[in-house]
Amino acid sequence: MIASKIVTLDYGEGGLKTQEFIFQEILKRFNNPILAKLDDGSVIDIHHKKFVITTDSFIVDPPIFPGGNIGKLAVTGTVNDLVACGSKPIYLTLSLIIPEGFSFSNLEIILDSLNETAKLSNIIIVCGDTKVVPQRDSSVLCVNTTGLGEPINKNDYSTHNAKPGDKIIITGEVANHSLAILSIREGLGFENKIFSDCSNLDDLILPLLKRFDKINCLRDPTRGGLLGVLFDIIENSKVNAIINFGKIPVQKEVNFGCEMLGLDPLSLVNEGKMVIVVNKEQADDVLIELKKNIKAEKAAIIGEIQETRNVDLPQLILKKDEKNLLLKRPTGRTIPRLC
Amino acid sequence: MIASKIVTLDYGEGGLKTQEFIFQEILKRFNNPILAKLDDGSVIDIHHKKFVITTDSFIVDPPIFPGGNIGKLAVTGTVNDLVACGSKPIYLTLSLIIPEGFSFSNLEIILDSLNETAKLSNIIIVCGDTKVVPQRDSSVLCVNTTGLGEPINKNDYSTHNAKPGDKIIITGEVANHSLAILSIREGLGFENKIFSDCSNLDDLILPLLKRFDKINCLRDPTRGGLLGVLFDIIENSKVNAIINFGKIPVQKEVNFGCEMLGLDPLSLVNEGKMVIVVNKEQADDVLIELKKNIKAEKAAIIGEIQETRNVDLPQLILKKDEKNLLLKRPTGRTIPRLC
Repeated sequence: MIASKIVTLDYGEGGLKTQEFIFQEILKRFNNPILAKLDDGSVIDIHHKKFVITTDSFIVDPPIFPGGNIGKLAVTGTVNDLVACGSKPIYLTLSLIIPEGFSFSNLEIILDSLNETAKLSNIIIVCGDTKVVPQRDSSVLCVNTTGLGEPINKNDYSTHNAKPGDKIIITGEVANHSLAILSIREGLGFENKIFSDCSNLDDLILPLLKRFDKINCLRDPTRGGLLGVLFDIIENSKVNAIINFGKIPVQKEVNFGCEMLGLDPLSLVNEGKMVIVVNKEQADDVLIELKKNIKAEKAAIIGEIQETRNVDLPQLILKKDEKNLLLKRPTGRTIPRLC
Repeated sequence: MIASKIVTLDYGEGGLKTQEFIFQEILKRFNNPILAKLDDGSVIDIHHKKFVITTDSFIVDPPIFPGGNIGKLAVTGTVNDLVACGSKPIYLTLSLIIPEGFSFSNLEIILDSLNETAKLSNIIIVCGDTKVVPQRDSSVLCVNTTGLGEPINKNDYSTHNAKPGDKIIITGEVANHSLAILSIREGLGFENKIFSDCSNLDDLILPLLKRFDKINCLRDPTRGGLLGVLFDIIENSKVNAIINFGKIPVQKEVNFGCEMLGLDPLSLVNEGKMVIVVNKEQADDVLIELKKNIKAEKAAIIGEIQETRNVDLPQLILKKDEKNLLLKRPTGRTIPRLC
């Protein structure tokens, strides 16, 4: 007898298996040109005007963590997806699935934080839904947010637009969100040293897009981390990329925690960072401008886009200790689910 | 020591406790005029054009049931909320939270059905999200859909617009969705006789709205059932309503099942019905038109709106066995959660 196929955790971890699931089960079925771009948000046409729409479900254990909570995270995740599509967030929907027995005071902390975070970006919560489920069905709070944004210009910042010669910028230290949560879960004791980077990036990124006309791609490195975004860029733009390990900012404690847990900070989740691919002419000026905002004071140019010899097999190369390493897209198993 | 307050199941069951939670925890916090109307969908302004947006999270146990499954239900629920706001469904977002170990073949049945149901109403799935959670966190599939619709005219069909003299129509038999699911859960053996009424109502309702200009309220009686909708109408419109028990269509087996389980069919969930409040001049013609569609062949005028003597305490009266009973809004405990 053949055991029947089941869904496994790696279908949702942002690696190869997730990609396969999305292609085979979602895109094949719900095939349409809007969905097919697979960016952080989708551009829709309403009365001949373009809008960006994005949806995300958040489950985090624990729901309150150093630097944030699931309420702040839900708004931030949706705001940053809209911003990565070059749009100003306007409206948000909010759906809560609360497990029976959830602490009321924690729920209030989460809702207050959600409200404050929405106000920071002037996003209006326009509709919602609340469900409560029995403990036997679910023990975790789930928050779904769908966001609607308005593009601030006609540029396309998708992962399809990187061009050879472009510089790759990361707006700050990577992997803090993952490590802040793992530190609690695994009892690493970093609670006072590592905080989630969870924050809205509209104030950092949107003014930049108005000022610089040669920014080609934007993407926030959440699930799948920095490497996940870079693989999306090289595959969709059909280019190579080379990144310099020594230039990638990582907090000392985060690095140490990653070593203890056997994890790669480049594949872990960020909730307040942006990967920016920009024409080399404007790269230095973009960097100077970024660093004026405290959210990006550790921003760095970490690499560049190069031509590929084989458009079917674009390469991501990591320069480390004078060696060039050819990277592979992380599989699910190496990436703990954290958002 | 005082036990700390926790969230209980009745916060999500559509009765009094849900209403209290929504007012105290959601509306007070995220207060804005769009959210405050508390209709099935919210009207938003985009570039001086009105749109309707609605969001819903669905968890059903079992996820595949007689007459439908959670995929069909998610689309239908969102389509009908948009239709109840007088709008044509256009776009849908889809977020899946899949428990580890979920049967792949069941997931495919659900996604196929979701796709077919979306196609029936020409609704385009524009973006999505897939998360997989460990069994210890959740054992149930959760589907969140957010829908965007375009109003077909300038009329407001909210529960605030009922007027004394208006007739109340229900488009068919009530409580089938709840009983189809409860029959499986409780082993009542009605699987071949009771089917969920789960179906999109855009084809039934939208042509009606174009033809009849005196339809005042529309609302689909999902969570909270027929009585929940009628209480919303009398409280929001500040009117009384009287309904005639003998006129409310209920399938014989559904009635029998409700008696076995000690439930009131008038408080149970429907997923393919609409409550229509219409000026008495047009009520008979609306009914004739409805009955031409197989989805509403059992439609009936079940009561009427009356003036209230006390706008702070509008009354819902049930005429049964020659008596007039004053009804109270059902509390959570009497309503099993089914959507």
